[in-house]
Amino acid sequence: MSGPHYEQRRNKLRKRFRDAGVDALLISGVSNVRYLTGFTGDSSWLYLAARDAVVLSDTRFETQLAGQCPDLQCEIRDAASTIGDLARKVAAATRSKRIGIESDHLTLNQFHVLQGTLTSGELVPTSGLVERLREVKDKWELEQIRKAVEIAERGIAVVRSCLTKNQTEVEIRNLLEASMRSFGASGPAFEPIVGVGPTAALPHAHAGHHKVHESSLLLVDWGATTESGYRSDLTRVFFTGKPTKQMEQVYRIVLQAQQEAIRAIMPGVECIDVDRIARGIIADAGFGSYFGHGLGHGFGLDVHESVRVSPLSKQRFEPGMVVTVEPGIYLPGRFGIRIEDDILVTADGNEVLSGVPREFDDAFVPFLA
Amino acid sequence: MSGPHYEQRRNKLRKRFRDAGVDALLISGVSNVRYLTGFTGDSSWLYLAARDAVVLSDTRFETQLAGQCPDLQCEIRDAASTIGDLARKVAAATRSKRIGIESDHLTLNQFHVLQGTLTSGELVPTSGLVERLREVKDKWELEQIRKAVEIAERGIAVVRSCLTKNQTEVEIRNLLEASMRSFGASGPAFEPIVGVGPTAALPHAHAGHHKVHESSLLLVDWGATTESGYRSDLTRVFFTGKPTKQMEQVYRIVLQAQQEAIRAIMPGVECIDVDRIARGIIADAGFGSYFGHGLGHGFGLDVHESVRVSPLSKQRFEPGMVVTVEPGIYLPGRFGIRIEDDILVTADGNEVLSGVPREFDDAFVPFLA
Repeated sequence: MSGPHYEQRRNKLRKRFRDAGVDALLISGVSNVRYLTGFTGDSSWLYLAARDAVVLSDTRFETQLAGQCPDLQCEIRDAASTIGDLARKVAAATRSKRIGIESDHLTLNQFHVLQGTLTSGELVPTSGLVERLREVKDKWELEQIRKAVEIAERGIAVVRSCLTKNQTEVEIRNLLEASMRSFGASGPAFEPIVGVGPTAALPHAHAGHHKVHESSLLLVDWGATTESGYRSDLTRVFFTGKPTKQMEQVYRIVLQAQQEAIRAIMPGVECIDVDRIARGIIADAGFGSYFGHGLGHGFGLDVHESVRVSPLSKQRFEPGMVVTVEPGIYLPGRFGIRIEDDILVTADGNEVLSGVPREFDDAFVPFLA
Repeated sequence: MSGPHYEQRRNKLRKRFRDAGVDALLISGVSNVRYLTGFTGDSSWLYLAARDAVVLSDTRFETQLAGQCPDLQCEIRDAASTIGDLARKVAAATRSKRIGIESDHLTLNQFHVLQGTLTSGELVPTSGLVERLREVKDKWELEQIRKAVEIAERGIAVVRSCLTKNQTEVEIRNLLEASMRSFGASGPAFEPIVGVGPTAALPHAHAGHHKVHESSLLLVDWGATTESGYRSDLTRVFFTGKPTKQMEQVYRIVLQAQQEAIRAIMPGVECIDVDRIARGIIADAGFGSYFGHGLGHGFGLDVHESVRVSPLSKQRFEPGMVVTVEPGIYLPGRFGIRIEDDILVTADGNEVLSGVPREFDDAFVPFLA
């Protein structure tokens, strides 16, 4: 399997310059720079013009850039100058007139500094140009994402087999991270969420010191990052004791919402409609006000990236998009249940990339529940 | 030891409103929000007016906010509305006329959306208001930072005692992270840099698969994050074999540069002058072009925060500031040496918070070198 084609990606982006009304683009989003160059450092921008591709960086990354981007021109600053100084130099050299900037990544302050620094050309705010390219994954990226899913699956299998009633959330998180690293992850895809009972009702809880035995329910939201930088993002609920009737009821509703939403994913379908399916099932069951977040999101080099699957979505699914589907019901002070899988949009439907068992009966942890 | 006084911090900030030309401030920097409220989530802003303090968040964080910020008013949005909608509502309710925004944290796009959303008041870009407050640490914060340093020190002691010739950089990083967690860290302060020989010449290298025996030099740049969110940031070079004459020469120059720079740190001294001392020593020794980054930086809730100690610094040291001092010399393709410690500015000088031995003889690893 050959690696990513950075020059091809840059050429695709160049083809969008005219519609965006720019003749050059200053890319400052760290994952966007990585996507277009293969450079894994930070604090560096890519200046892309019709014929030129120049990385603006500093001496910390000089050697790394020579190794990772041998085909790219690099402008390196020392500690006494700014990245804006480099941008001015390159903009003048390439004689760009309308220089696009990434308004989702440049801070207002960076924008003003850049405006004050440039002596030629005009800055043109753009939004989502590289993100749109990144929505549809190529073959190599899909291999990386499948690897990230597999590492996550192996990690949770270890955690599940090691669960005891006396473990704390933090201990479980640490074991999960260590396991994923042992299977080749460069790290977790994000700080894993590990919540016992009422903590699981906090959709974005940090792992704390609650012990497994404090409830009969444990929620884990986790993922792996591959060495190539690609991520996975999954959630499962485990029963570590006898679930209450309400836990069973909520579990089945969430699962149904998830499964029906997944079934609807295919090219051409509007993301908002898939969100609506899951939201409708949860609302019809009387839990509408307990599902307050979007249904899912794209992921890849970032754990959250375009497209979004939410009531605010404006896009349609396309083959090659990869999204999470993760409905949840959160009952404050009691428990929360979310089931999350990673879905690839295929030419004629979709493929669920993650195979961790998700049926109600699968959630029972052997020896504990 | 009592905890942080969030209301006191907010009141200090309010006193700066007049000079900043605002009567309210919309705080969107995630660590700034945490500093002023104690809230540990993300995607949430603080709207601070003369009498009001309102957290703008979403349903994912509703329960968490009630627990962490019981004294604060919260405006919670669901998946069908935006944080800008909440800002409009609160701005109108408080009748603020000049609403400061954080131009170092708001993206250009967020700024434009907010401008289009607000129906009352005028947005005023501000910079560094909360960051300036955060530069000087209070007693509670210093306790947290000391804890973060101690955890980092315990972590590296384990790594050092476990070093073998066959370990890879990744294995060392994983052991370091696991050790720090076992001593109470919520995680590393940043992805630890672990570099064997030539990899150490990349100031921001990721740990890879080089083994200890491939060189006689190993560089580790690491830190811990406490559960309270405070960080440490240290670097040491270890000799895992017989160092070359040049390694010894460079080590001694870097150490001298670091020690003389540290000696100069005291209230009233300009940060740029301390940078100049270290840079001068390295330049006089003929390695000026091999030290391309700033000498140091403040840290706390973030690993890099105000103040900066660099050729671009414009500030003076004040009692209560905590900074790194980390000169380095990087010889591409050969090796790099950086020595980094954490320094507290005291009333009449400074205190080196980190006690990991740093003399040339200390760098030799028992049983290996």
